[in-house]
Amino acid sequence: MKFNNRNVVISPSAKIGKNVRIGDNVTIYDNVILKDNITICNDCVIGEPLASYYEDDQYENPITIIGENSLLRSHCIIYAGTELGNNFNCGHRVTIREFTIFKNNCRVGTVSDIQGYSTFGNNCWLHSNVHIGQKSTIGDFVFIYPYVVLTNDPTPPSDICIGPTIGDYSQIAVFSVLLPGIKIGKHALVGAGSIVGKDVEDYQLVLGSPAKFIKDVREIKSRDTSEAHYPWPLRFERGMPWEGVGFETWNISKEK
Amino acid sequence: MKFNNRNVVISPSAKIGKNVRIGDNVTIYDNVILKDNITICNDCVIGEPLASYYEDDQYENPITIIGENSLLRSHCIIYAGTELGNNFNCGHRVTIREFTIFKNNCRVGTVSDIQGYSTFGNNCWLHSNVHIGQKSTIGDFVFIYPYVVLTNDPTPPSDICIGPTIGDYSQIAVFSVLLPGIKIGKHALVGAGSIVGKDVEDYQLVLGSPAKFIKDVREIKSRDTSEAHYPWPLRFERGMPWEGVGFETWNISKEK
Amino acid sequence: MKFNNRNVVISPSAKIGKNVRIGDNVTIYDNVILKDNITICNDCVIGEPLASYYEDDQYENPITIIGENSLLRSHCIIYAGTELGNNFNCGHRVTIREFTIFKNNCRVGTVSDIQGYSTFGNNCWLHSNVHIGQKSTIGDFVFIYPYVVLTNDPTPPSDICIGPTIGDYSQIAVFSVLLPGIKIGKHALVGAGSIVGKDVEDYQLVLGSPAKFIKDVREIKSRDTSEAHYPWPLRFERGMPWEGVGFETWNISKEK
Repeated sequence: MKFNNRNVVISPSAKIGKNVRIGDNVTIYDNVILKDNITICNDCVIGEPLASYYEDDQYENPITIIGENSLLRSHCIIYAGTELGNNFNCGHRVTIREFTIFKNNCRVGTVSDIQGYSTFGNNCWLHSNVHIGQKSTIGDFVFIYPYVVLTNDPTPPSDICIGPTIGDYSQIAVFSVLLPGIKIGKHALVGAGSIVGKDVEDYQLVLGSPAKFIKDVREIKSRDTSEAHYPWPLRFERGMPWEGVGFETWNISKEK
Repeated sequence: MKFNNRNVVISPSAKIGKNVRIGDNVTIYDNVILKDNITICNDCVIGEPLASYYEDDQYENPITIIGENSLLRSHCIIYAGTELGNNFNCGHRVTIREFTIFKNNCRVGTVSDIQGYSTFGNNCWLHSNVHIGQKSTIGDFVFIYPYVVLTNDPTPPSDICIGPTIGDYSQIAVFSVLLPGIKIGKHALVGAGSIVGKDVEDYQLVLGSPAKFIKDVREIKSRDTSEAHYPWPLRFERGMPWEGVGFETWNISKEK
Repeated sequence: MKFNNRNVVISPSAKIGKNVRIGDNVTIYDNVILKDNITICNDCVIGEPLASYYEDDQYENPITIIGENSLLRSHCIIYAGTELGNNFNCGHRVTIREFTIFKNNCRVGTVSDIQGYSTFGNNCWLHSNVHIGQKSTIGDFVFIYPYVVLTNDPTPPSDICIGPTIGDYSQIAVFSVLLPGIKIGKHALVGAGSIVGKDVEDYQLVLGSPAKFIKDVREIKSRDTSEAHYPWPLRFERGMPWEGVGFETWNISKEK
């Protein structure tokens, strides 16, 4: 039903892999590379030109890469200069601005807004309506929930731009703000509605405005089993590379 | 001006009622039922296929129903399997995912994001940019204001999914979060910026992070009249079924 | 690449200035005035009809004006009756409802939602995902950051609508709420995640829920220079009319 080649515009300089499906009303700009087995749903824009396009007659669109086996749902805008890894999967109306890098197996929810010049590791899951300011650095297996904001200007307005850093396996709950330059360790958990103004160590649960240390995440019990739920990779496998084998086995085999 | 039948795609299996207007660039997928006197504005998608559509050659789209006298503003995406009651009215860029049920006379504001598998009673008004997680249960005459989030995973990430419940006539103010499985009674009011982690009784005003009981809503005065403003159905009639007759008269006649 | 005149609809009553570029899939409704040197990117809607359009056969679209040298990025919806000043610049998927006035040199970020019947002075910068309720009044050189909400109903639901007022050079940080009718002075700063329920004086930094006075903004130091950063016009020039000459010189020449 979706792929009728209706009202589609594809630049002659775009490189389209094998088994790529492109929905109706899609625009693909110059110098876009779509790898194999990709689905671009209706009304998406891939390789959106940067601001200088409107003024510079010599403008040349930076290279945009979409990885293998990716699925972009309708109405997404992916700016030129961005690289999405393999198995990228996103909701509707996502905006990802220029020079963002997602490694493999990442997911981004509906209406999320990535402001560009940021990097994400492997297997990051961003939920709906996440806002990532420029110069953010996110590790592997990071979960970011709806209405989280990563900021970068400590004394607005200024020309300083220092984004936050989030370590592997950490999670940021709904309505939390990471203030400029903050570093979150590994396996940390930022509770809902927190304003994080100080660095957070590995395995810390922090909460509040300003966010304060509450307890070690390894002390948090599951509502179902009453056993420790964290570190979560030991308890959660769905969609993870250790599905079926367990995190510890996977981790050992990875390190070999 | 709006209805030129330009760039419209309608599945042959869709059933279109009488006096239905369909805007330009609209897509209507398989097994959609549009009742009478509906207006679907430009660029809407009705019956958006579920995730399995992309992988399953035998995929069949679930039935989607849009009730009589409904108005969907432009750029909305309504997933297959959803049922919108009569007189449904929504803003722009609303996303309503699969197997959501709205009863009659509901309104949903611009950019709101309903994640599916949830039910809403009659006469619910959701403002702009509301986020409803899966498995939420909302009563009749519930008002939800911008940037409210209903969550469902108590120890993320996990495979537990227990949505909140909101009773009739209750209201949730801007930037509030209902934590997983929370029950809000009837005629309650959750103040702005609250994180609700405990159940809220009928007629309670709660506020803060974590939300605490402040007072009975019946003690809150109107700024205009200095008289009690709650229960609000006694003071507010615009667009309500008791408009012109009063809530108590309507309520008595309804119970007969 | 962008301007192919593909799937464009322009009302015969629209007035289009010189050197106007109109992207693909754009709709321009009745009585829109586009001044000179404007760029309307793909999929925008200009002069979106008001609610009565759907019911009133005699409906006439109010006049919509877009100022000179403006750039509207893709998927924006600008309602009829709105006036955008010169050099207006906005992101994607912005919604600006009826009878909103922006003076010159304003910017509005992606997914922001202006509910109409509001006024903005010159050089206001709204970041992504700002929500401005009806009847808001904003001065000159105001910065509003992501996920800020201006509200207008003190006892919801009611028929009272009293929007907030923000004075010149003031800033509202992420996730802050201005409650109905609140007045923010000049050069004030509302910190992240604040719920502002009382008026804020000139030069005050307020923070928290409820927002409380913390200090005079002139006591805040820059992270780079360790010198006072506020009033910010003395330290920040990028994109401002005093760029290159300094705020004080510009201010004196303006007053002459």
